Amino acid sequence: MTATASRPTDPLIPLIEAELIRSVGSGEDLLETACLDALFPGGKLLRPTLCMESARAVGGRAESVLSFAAAIECLHVASLVHDDIVDQDPVRRGRASTAERFGIAEALLVGDGLFTTGWAAMLRGGPADRVLAASRAIVEAVHAMCRASMREIEIREDLACGRSAVLEVIRGKTAALTGAACRAGAILAGATPEQIDALHHYGEQLGMAFQIRDDLLPYTADDALTGKSAVSDVANRQPTLPVLLAYESADDHDRRHLTEIFHGNVDLTTAHRDLLDVLARTGAITEAARQARACAARARAALDGLSATGRLAWLADSAADRHQ
Amino acid sequence: MTATASRPTDPLIPLIEAELIRSVGSGEDLLETACLDALFPGGKLLRPTLCMESARAVGGRAESVLSFAAAIECLHVASLVHDDIVDQDPVRRGRASTAERFGIAEALLVGDGLFTTGWAAMLRGGPADRVLAASRAIVEAVHAMCRASMREIEIREDLACGRSAVLEVIRGKTAALTGAACRAGAILAGATPEQIDALHHYGEQLGMAFQIRDDLLPYTADDALTGKSAVSDVANRQPTLPVLLAYESADDHDRRHLTEIFHGNVDLTTAHRDLLDVLARTGAITEAARQARACAARARAALDGLSATGRLAWLADSAADRHQ
Repeated sequence: MTATASRPTDPLIPLIEAELIRSVGSGEDLLETACLDALFPGGKLLRPTLCMESARAVGGRAESVLSFAAAIECLHVASLVHDDIVDQDPVRRGRASTAERFGIAEALLVGDGLFTTGWAAMLRGGPADRVLAASRAIVEAVHAMCRASMREIEIREDLACGRSAVLEVIRGKTAALTGAACRAGAILAGATPEQIDALHHYGEQLGMAFQIRDDLLPYTADDALTGKSAVSDVANRQPTLPVLLAYESADDHDRRHLTEIFHGNVDLTTAHRDLLDVLARTGAITEAARQARACAARARAALDGLSATGRLAWLADSAADRHQ
Repeated sequence: MTATASRPTDPLIPLIEAELIRSVGSGEDLLETACLDALFPGGKLLRPTLCMESARAVGGRAESVLSFAAAIECLHVASLVHDDIVDQDPVRRGRASTAERFGIAEALLVGDGLFTTGWAAMLRGGPADRVLAASRAIVEAVHAMCRASMREIEIREDLACGRSAVLEVIRGKTAALTGAACRAGAILAGATPEQIDALHHYGEQLGMAFQIRDDLLPYTADDALTGKSAVSDVANRQPTLPVLLAYESADDHDRRHLTEIFHGNVDLTTAHRDLLDVLARTGAITEAARQARACAARARAALDGLSATGRLAWLADSAADRHQ
């Protein structure tokens, strides 16, 4: 995911970046060097931002959950580094992936190192009961990510897996952690159970919206915006929501064509162009965009009754319109 | 490591195995199935045994830390699954490694899944302050494991890295977690700071002893005992303590020969036979065995003043004599 996470002037970003360096170390050995290389230049720091803004939304200080928030980014980047091994993807954020730069064995250990750096930073603070409850939420989410990644391997090339399987993958791979990041921020700030659940729901729906938008990018934008190749879904033979929606409403001829594309019988550039045609013809792009907007609207609605939600609301609005 | 962890009649083993299944799940999906395949048939369950026996040694009930103890085994097996990807090792515990059976991408996710299963189980219990302190000890140890694995890659083929580099790897890859397992058990059972430190020291020294013994196995036993090929160190070009000790005390001719072997210019079977000769000639096997016994003796001594340490003492004795 490469979500538009925050306005350029977000003052939390440099705080989070400094905290990330503090957690990982300054590059004393190969592990630290490669971990820093995976973290910087960073993404939009959506998950730590969500954690800190959620604390603020329930009356807490954003800075009081900084260390925990930065830890969530470590876990997120760890999962990206491992994902690029699983998908054999040479590109991440517009440059060579960690596996491509350092080797597969090294990238595996960078992922493991960032995971443990994250867990360690997470468990460092207090009070104990809140840290424990917040950490439980995060670990459940990271486990859901593993499960979803494995499910993704299972449905590779499988256009008949059904949209529920793909939505389940999106929920596990993205929405679980964005939801848990909000939940954790709320818990750490001493929120009520109702506030915690509302922010969790906000984070999940926001994550769904961003991920569905991201899955649309190969068909609606140029490569520059995602930093990934537009043809990578086809290259990985990974059915995404728009493709599944197209398959469900396609006629027999288009279904056969989609099947050929996803079994690698067509060269990548032709495949991508043909896929674009089928997706437009079947209305799949419009329908996926509609679903993303619906998730964003549910996220927005979940903020009712909370305070100081300016940035969270802005994020929901930007998820409704990916190019904002 | 394939330590002789417990007497055959150890009543804790079936409890730990049942708890592992409870944590991982019964094989509902590919992730659970592959995680169970990595866990069973199990090893000697040294780390959970250490955790439970440490609780007992400070007057606690072993069963009260069962869930936390089983979680440590999940983390340990996760690291083994990832190690076999890093080392491209097709064999683990005498059968195909997870990477070999399920594929590299799947094995990576099995490792991640076992890690998160472990963290989740670890954070589930209470009281919060003890769980947090015990979990911190474990996460520090797992981070040390990552760092040591990366260091191991750095010193591959490097016979001049010095024995301190190899000892540092052994400490990180094995002793850190055996030490932390003991520390965690003691913390969870409400031990005094002195008891906690004593048991931590015991666990570290025991781990050092077992790992040095394990590194000696390719030169002192047949393959059956380790479940790994005797030639795998040579195949991986990974200098171990006995090899480093041999290199340090070898004459120029033997040094050149060791260098040739570790740069892959000699076929594996010849390399292993030649290595055995050099190791015996230089006294490296005797010296490594002496160091293992010294660690085991320090482990034994650390138990002074603790109670109900029967099995811990037996483990230290068995580490002094690997074939007991």
